[in-house]
Amino acid sequence: MRVLGIDPGLTRCGVGVVEGVPGRPGTMIAYHVVRTESDDDIAHRLLQLDRALAALVAEHQPESVAVERVFAQHNVRTVMGTAQASAVAVLAGARAGLPVQTYTPSEVKAAVTGSGTAGKAQVTAMVTRLLQLDAPPKPADAADALALAICHIWRGGTRARIQAAALAAARKAHQGRVRR
Amino acid sequence: MRVLGIDPGLTRCGVGVVEGVPGRPGTMIAYHVVRTESDDDIAHRLLQLDRALAALVAEHQPESVAVERVFAQHNVRTVMGTAQASAVAVLAGARAGLPVQTYTPSEVKAAVTGSGTAGKAQVTAMVTRLLQLDAPPKPADAADALALAICHIWRGGTRARIQAAALAAARKAHQGRVRR
Repeated sequence: MRVLGIDPGLTRCGVGVVEGVPGRPGTMIAYHVVRTESDDDIAHRLLQLDRALAALVAEHQPESVAVERVFAQHNVRTVMGTAQASAVAVLAGARAGLPVQTYTPSEVKAAVTGSGTAGKAQVTAMVTRLLQLDAPPKPADAADALALAICHIWRGGTRARIQAAALAAARKAHQGRVRR
Repeated sequence: MRVLGIDPGLTRCGVGVVEGVPGRPGTMIAYHVVRTESDDDIAHRLLQLDRALAALVAEHQPESVAVERVFAQHNVRTVMGTAQASAVAVLAGARAGLPVQTYTPSEVKAAVTGSGTAGKAQVTAMVTRLLQLDAPPKPADAADALALAICHIWRGGTRARIQAAALAAARKAHQGRVRR
């Protein structure tokens, strides 16, 4: 399964592509950081981001897209830009006909470090180890995007297992009823 | 000058098309409200809005797009959705190669009512009067979108006059220097 993770931002937007299966160390395909100028017009910035993400989706042909969910807990100005960038990120996947899943920062941290309150350094360290990289991905936005992709692969696996278990249980119950 | 105004929202997004010149009552071409279901997936909602706005821009062929600027002053959850919808709105214009301008709610209110703190009813009443409509546009999101388009036409005119005056003054100063 190839997943393209996006850590949305207007000034720096992290993009990470990982290929893998649930429960095993994945393989890093690529990572990028899309930048737009903060003194540029908002329409121009969103359009630049839109084009860059569409190009990366076309280049890497992922099966699904994972985007970090945005909360209005930080600086109000930054958060509005991040929310706008996240809309562009979600659209980049949706417009390509791909399933798009959003994850909270703590879901991503918990997936790669085991703790939902892990710091940025810890996330970067674990991404580097899990993907067996020679050096930590830089900037942190790229590491976060790779962590999102890993989170999606692993969570997808968990969900698949839960669904399979539920299906098996339902079948067993059905067989039990048939036998009686 | 034909302007397409967008009052961004995920649940209800107002779109209003007005044709006019600065300082004269404009003509309403059309208004629409794009709705998406609040219990629907965010990727699906943004994609629906994206497609609807692209279709309206293609249908009405405006020369420019005016979008309401979003502030994080209200309900946090709503504001994140509104910020995402505003990104889709800005992109709808930018992707069509049109100039996109954003206006604050108070700029829009001031343009159509003379007061930046006017209420929704007052904005709707003035939009109805200025565009010589038989009935007030409903819902209020549509009236706001029409007000945005009017605001853009009038402000654009003001800006054009200011630029013309500045140019004339610069020319005069230049001639003065030449004569000496």
